[in-house]
Amino acid sequence: MLRIITQQAEAQIELRRIRDRTSQDHVIHKEATVREVLQAIKRQGDKALLHYTEEFDHQTLSIDGLRVSGSELDAAYQQVSKELLDAIQLAAQQIEAFHRQRVPKSWVQFGDDEIVLGKRYTPVDRAGIYVPGGRASYPSTVLMNAIPAKVAKVPQVVMVTPPGSDKTINPAVLVAAQEAGVQEIYRVGGAQAIAALAYGTETIPKVDVITGPGNIYVTLAKKLVYGTVGIDSLAGPSEVLIIADTAANPVYIAADLLAQAEHDPMAASILLTSEAQLAKQVQEEVERQLKDHPRRLLTEKAIAHFGLIVLVDSLDEAAELSNEFAPEHLELEIAEPWDLLEKIRHAGAIFLGHSTPEAVGDYLAGPNHTLPTSGAARYASALGVETFMKHSSLIQYSSTALNKVSSAIQALAEAEGLPSHADSVRLRTQEEL
Amino acid sequence: MLRIITQQAEAQIELRRIRDRTSQDHVIHKEATVREVLQAIKRQGDKALLHYTEEFDHQTLSIDGLRVSGSELDAAYQQVSKELLDAIQLAAQQIEAFHRQRVPKSWVQFGDDEIVLGKRYTPVDRAGIYVPGGRASYPSTVLMNAIPAKVAKVPQVVMVTPPGSDKTINPAVLVAAQEAGVQEIYRVGGAQAIAALAYGTETIPKVDVITGPGNIYVTLAKKLVYGTVGIDSLAGPSEVLIIADTAANPVYIAADLLAQAEHDPMAASILLTSEAQLAKQVQEEVERQLKDHPRRLLTEKAIAHFGLIVLVDSLDEAAELSNEFAPEHLELEIAEPWDLLEKIRHAGAIFLGHSTPEAVGDYLAGPNHTLPTSGAARYASALGVETFMKHSSLIQYSSTALNKVSSAIQALAEAEGLPSHADSVRLRTQEEL
Repeated sequence: MLRIITQQAEAQIELRRIRDRTSQDHVIHKEATVREVLQAIKRQGDKALLHYTEEFDHQTLSIDGLRVSGSELDAAYQQVSKELLDAIQLAAQQIEAFHRQRVPKSWVQFGDDEIVLGKRYTPVDRAGIYVPGGRASYPSTVLMNAIPAKVAKVPQVVMVTPPGSDKTINPAVLVAAQEAGVQEIYRVGGAQAIAALAYGTETIPKVDVITGPGNIYVTLAKKLVYGTVGIDSLAGPSEVLIIADTAANPVYIAADLLAQAEHDPMAASILLTSEAQLAKQVQEEVERQLKDHPRRLLTEKAIAHFGLIVLVDSLDEAAELSNEFAPEHLELEIAEPWDLLEKIRHAGAIFLGHSTPEAVGDYLAGPNHTLPTSGAARYASALGVETFMKHSSLIQYSSTALNKVSSAIQALAEAEGLPSHADSVRLRTQEEL
Repeated sequence: MLRIITQQAEAQIELRRIRDRTSQDHVIHKEATVREVLQAIKRQGDKALLHYTEEFDHQTLSIDGLRVSGSELDAAYQQVSKELLDAIQLAAQQIEAFHRQRVPKSWVQFGDDEIVLGKRYTPVDRAGIYVPGGRASYPSTVLMNAIPAKVAKVPQVVMVTPPGSDKTINPAVLVAAQEAGVQEIYRVGGAQAIAALAYGTETIPKVDVITGPGNIYVTLAKKLVYGTVGIDSLAGPSEVLIIADTAANPVYIAADLLAQAEHDPMAASILLTSEAQLAKQVQEEVERQLKDHPRRLLTEKAIAHFGLIVLVDSLDEAAELSNEFAPEHLELEIAEPWDLLEKIRHAGAIFLGHSTPEAVGDYLAGPNHTLPTSGAARYASALGVETFMKHSSLIQYSSTALNKVSSAIQALAEAEGLPSHADSVRLRTQEEL
C-alpha cells in the first residue's frame, strides 16, 4: 500500500531517506571484489575476462565467441517484429534529431594586439557503452547511449552486454545497436566488462569514455576506473517525483508511479499533492493496477519501501520539497506547469502537463533518458553529445600583446614563488625592449 | 640533465611511463586513511575537523577561528603591493570576460502537434573551492575556480584553504578571493576539508560541487566523495609538451620547460623537435637556467625523472606522439602553428606561436588553467562555467502528439517487459479514441 504522509517534518525525513537510499556503507566490501576483478583484467586480459564471466555469470565463453558475429547481427533483424523495428527506428530518429541540436562547436575570437582565444571541440577516439542484459532487454538504453556518441562523431564505438543463458544477445538490442551505428559488440557484462573497456584486453579495445547503467558491481567498477577513463555518471536506481493538482487524473498518475516502481525494487515513486481526495484515489488506483501486474512482487516491494504520497499545502511547498529531493524525473501534472517551472531548481528531466508521461521521454521524445539519480540532479545533467567530446583552449599572443601583460604576469609569478614562470615572459619581452 | 632520445620505440615507452606516472598501486593504503577521515567528519563534524587538522597539519584551531574574519579580509588588501593588486585585478577581469562568453543558455523549441522540447540551465546551489596553501600561495587558483562559479551565478561559494604555521592565510589569496566575489573562507585543508564540504559540519556548509587542485590525499578524497557531490576532475601533477621547429628559440623553450618542472617533483616537461641542434641547445640552456634557480633541487628532480627531449622525423610524428600523450599543456613553438592544429586531437590547452608561453594562460589570458592531466585530455576538458551548472530536459506532449507515438511506445515498453510504461500511455490515449 502506497503510504500517505500529511506532516511536513515526517515528509522531509522520509524524502531524505528515499533520496539517500543507495548511500549504504555495505558497498565497501563489494568494492574489494571489484578491485580484484579490475586488477586481474589489467594483468591477464581476456583470460581473466573469461574466468570471471564463468565465475559470476556462469557462462563458458571462448575468446573467439566474445564478439557478436556479422551473421548474428544480420539475423537479429529477422527476429524482431515489423512493429518493433518501426518503433526503434522512430525513436532513433527523434533521439538523433534532438541531440544534433546545439552540438558544441569550435570557435575563435580575435582581440586587440593580435590576441587569439578560442575553444576547439573534438570527439574522443573511442567510446564504450555498457548495456545491461541477461534476462532483460533494453534497446532504449542502446539508443540513448550510442546515438550521442554517433552525433559526436566518435570514430570507434564499442558495446558490451552480458548474454542470455544460451549465450545470445537479445535481437532488439542488436537491432538498436545497428540502427545507432554500432557494429562492434562483445557479449560480456559486469565489473569485468568495465575493466576490459578501461584497460583493454587482447580482444576488447581500451576506450576513453565508458557510459551506460548497470548493477552495483558495474557502478563500483565505473567509479574505480574513473580517472583512467571518463564516465557518464554513477547511476543508481530510477525515481520519479510527480507534483499534481486538482486537474490531475489519478489513473494516469498511478500508472506513472508504477512505471517507475516496475524497474527495480529500489526504484522510488513519489507523489506530492495538495488534494487529499486525489491522494486517496491514487492510493486505491495503484492497488488496482498492481493486482494483475506481471511484475507484481518486485513492483510492490518498490512501492512499499520507496513509494510515498505527501500531502502539501501548496504547489510552492511541493516545488521546495522537490528541490530538496532533486529527482531524476519530475512530472508536473498540474494546470499551469510552465508557471511552476520557475520554482524548480534541480531535476534531471521535467515532464509538463497531463499528456506527457515519463515513458514518452524514456523512449522517444528525443532528450536523453540517462539522467542523474539519488539527488545528483543537484549538480549533474543528462548524458549528451558533450559526454563524448572535450575541448582544448586555444591561446595565441603576439609579442606586442605579451609586452603589455609582462609585468602583471611577473608580479603574479613572483607572488606564487615560481621564478621560471616569470622568466618565460621576461626573457621573451626583454629582447623586445 | 634533460635526456635526449632519438629512437622512436624508446620515445613511446618513455612518454607512456611519464604520462602514467601517477597511476601507482601504492595509493590504495592512503585510501584507507582518507576513508577514515571521511567517515569521522561525516559522523562528528567540526570536532573531527579540528582533530585531523591537529593530527595532519599540526595546527590547533578553534571552531570560532575556522572562518576567516571580516577584518582579516579587509586587512589583506593592505598587505599586498599595488602592483600585485593590479595584476590580480587584470587577471580577474580577463578570466571573467572569457568565461562570460557562451555561458550555456536555456532554450525551448516548438514542434508539430504542440510538442515542446528544451533544456533549462541552472546553477548549483552551493560550490566549494579547494585552494592549496600552507607555505605556498596560489591567488591564480582562487581566480580560476571562483570566477566560473560567479559567472554561473552560484548563490553560495565557499572556499577552504590550509593556513600557514601562524594560522593566517596568504593575503594575496584573500584578495583574489574577494576580487572573485568569495567572502566565506575557512582555514582548513587536506582530506578533512573535502569531507567537510561534501557532508557539511556545524560550521562548514555542505556544497553540491567541489573544485580545485590538491595533494594526493585531497585528490583521493575528491574521488571518494564523487557521487555524493560533483567534482571538477582528479588533478595530477602538471605537465607541458612543446613541439618546436627551427623557428624556435632555445632560451624561451628552456624557460617554459622549467616553468613546468618548478611546480612539483612529479611535473613533466617534454620537448618534441626535429632539430638536433635545437635539442642540444635546449639541453644546455636548461642547465644554465637551473644553476641559480631558487627551487633548484625540486626542479632538477622533475627534469631528471619526468623531463625528456625526443628527436622526431617530422611535425606529423610530433603531433602523433603528442596525441598519445594527451598533454595538459601543449605549446606549438613552430612557424605555422595553426596548420599543425588540425592534427592535434587531445590537449587541455594549446599555446600557439613564440610569444605565448604557458604562463600567459596560467595567469591571465582568460581561459581556465584547471586542465586535465595524466592523459585525461583524451576525454576531459578545462574547468568552466558549466562545471557549476546543470540542465534539466524539458518535454511537453499534447494529447494529439501522444496519440501519434502511442503504439511505438507500447511496442518498446513490451519489448523491454515494462507493462506499466505501456499502460501510462495506453490509459491516456484510449480515452481519446
